[in-house]
Amino acid sequence: MTSAAQTIREANDAVEASLRTFMDDRELPLYKMMAYHLGWVDELGEPSHRTPQDRLRGAVAFLSSRASSGNAGSGNAVAVAIELLFNFTLIHTDIQEGNPDRMSRPALWWVWGPAQGINAGDGMHALARLVILNQADTGVDPVAISGELKILDTSALQFCEGAYMDTVFQERLAVGVEEYLSMVGSISGSLVAGAAQIGFNAGNSTDEKLAGGLTTFGRDLGVIWRLQEDHAAIWGTESMDEGAQGRLISKKKTLPVVHALETAEPSTRRELGNMYAQRVIDPANISHLREILDQSGSQEFTEQKISDHTDSAFSGLDSVGVDAEIADALKSLVGDTARG
Amino acid sequence: MTSAAQTIREANDAVEASLRTFMDDRELPLYKMMAYHLGWVDELGEPSHRTPQDRLRGAVAFLSSRASSGNAGSGNAVAVAIELLFNFTLIHTDIQEGNPDRMSRPALWWVWGPAQGINAGDGMHALARLVILNQADTGVDPVAISGELKILDTSALQFCEGAYMDTVFQERLAVGVEEYLSMVGSISGSLVAGAAQIGFNAGNSTDEKLAGGLTTFGRDLGVIWRLQEDHAAIWGTESMDEGAQGRLISKKKTLPVVHALETAEPSTRRELGNMYAQRVIDPANISHLREILDQSGSQEFTEQKISDHTDSAFSGLDSVGVDAEIADALKSLVGDTARG
Repeated sequence: MTSAAQTIREANDAVEASLRTFMDDRELPLYKMMAYHLGWVDELGEPSHRTPQDRLRGAVAFLSSRASSGNAGSGNAVAVAIELLFNFTLIHTDIQEGNPDRMSRPALWWVWGPAQGINAGDGMHALARLVILNQADTGVDPVAISGELKILDTSALQFCEGAYMDTVFQERLAVGVEEYLSMVGSISGSLVAGAAQIGFNAGNSTDEKLAGGLTTFGRDLGVIWRLQEDHAAIWGTESMDEGAQGRLISKKKTLPVVHALETAEPSTRRELGNMYAQRVIDPANISHLREILDQSGSQEFTEQKISDHTDSAFSGLDSVGVDAEIADALKSLVGDTARG
Repeated sequence: MTSAAQTIREANDAVEASLRTFMDDRELPLYKMMAYHLGWVDELGEPSHRTPQDRLRGAVAFLSSRASSGNAGSGNAVAVAIELLFNFTLIHTDIQEGNPDRMSRPALWWVWGPAQGINAGDGMHALARLVILNQADTGVDPVAISGELKILDTSALQFCEGAYMDTVFQERLAVGVEEYLSMVGSISGSLVAGAAQIGFNAGNSTDEKLAGGLTTFGRDLGVIWRLQEDHAAIWGTESMDEGAQGRLISKKKTLPVVHALETAEPSTRRELGNMYAQRVIDPANISHLREILDQSGSQEFTEQKISDHTDSAFSGLDSVGVDAEIADALKSLVGDTARG
């Protein structure tokens, strides 16, 4: 394991441990559903021994708090809040998109029904705030707490603004590249930008340049993750997860398709239009879809965008003097998938 | 108009005006859906001239802040927050229960679909916090802001805990009166208790007895409103709104039915069980249902519970020295419907 991977693993484990501590004393059935979603128990509430979950947004918050030279304690709290916020959005998104699976087992709403799924998400949304508010009991400055909550709620609201467009775009063919990328910034950039910003806030630094560099990094990273998913939805093979496959089949827009719809020859655009006018995309058409996207240069375009955002993310970190160990760890979150 | 009704009307109008001011500069489509739900525009975003909406939970917060001798400004903010929190729960509940209508027109999710309905509710949930956090810009003490947010999130979480049970009870016949009332306390008591408590918090008083009396009043009032709906679902006539009718038809449990299922003769219980085992209750069976509930004393029982909670609510207010004008106005919110 590289040193960067080791740092991420330690941050991830610290967030996971704090998340479990925060959730552990909640006994009502509402919280059993949440524990299931978080991968800790099975449908019957029995402990399940699953691979530790990724808590990467929490890790971004945790490491940003270290970069801001905060104490580990308040870095933990904001990281837990960000993970709860992110997981609330996953629970609701699975219902909204009709995803039956999440992490290779039935999604929460598939087990308990959509009504309880909405409810479990709403409860987790409230819990994300309470973990931050509870810091008042350990003497954290109320001004810092208010600042953290404002970051959390602003991120949540930007996510909802983006989710509105994401849903609208599913039913529309005329989606421009620019408006698509703006939507991705809202829905995918907001939570990771919020993770970096809230982590900075939990630290002691008042260096606004550092805050800006971390936040920019977070926003770019969120966009990169989404564009990597978009790329994998078309060109990924065995390793494609249910979400990516589902996105393709349910016609959720992806950057390569949006690019081709905007830029290809009229005959190609008509062909794409016919394909996307069907209720679901016939799996037999997927290889033909790939050919069209190759011809329109949409694969290179997507890879270029990922590369541009990676440059922006890295130069943001490099220019503000983030500690080298933390910077390397954060950069490793970009991964190598689909880079141009 | 009585003086109490006048005081409520003024509080209601003040909350409505603040709510509009807070929402007015939000232009994205996400907020158009919210404006529709709040009764201000039609499906196309054009202004609609509807009867002013009731903002009664906001009015409870507003008047509680006056009782705590707060300034009108911060009473407005917490009242707006409570209304946004309450309306977020309505938006989601309509999806969860499949209610097509709300206030005599299509529910938000019926117009924009369930995915956008979930999304609009989530956004409103985040906005409820932002209106409180924004008070920092006008110099409100961060400690007071944290306290208000904690009340808001605790209320939201209790609501979700209750909503879990409410949904579970729909599929279950063996629901005891005690667990039903406990659920009603969570789902219906929590938000109105939170309204009273957050209003008190926005004022200047530090009198804990006053805080306790207002909060108890709020919790009782929320329970009373729900039990009055339960009563109207069975014995209401023309004035029954869609929600109440839908609750009956969709087999959502009500106190009279729970009481009869727990206490009636075995043959009557079997008959009720058969009625509730059908997917929907045949409207033709409703008058027979009424007869059964009359025989089992369930109407009196329900009215007695409403009366008990009214006594508790009023004596709570009377014992802590709430200003007479405010106390009369708050008491008038109980109304006369279905009192024993």
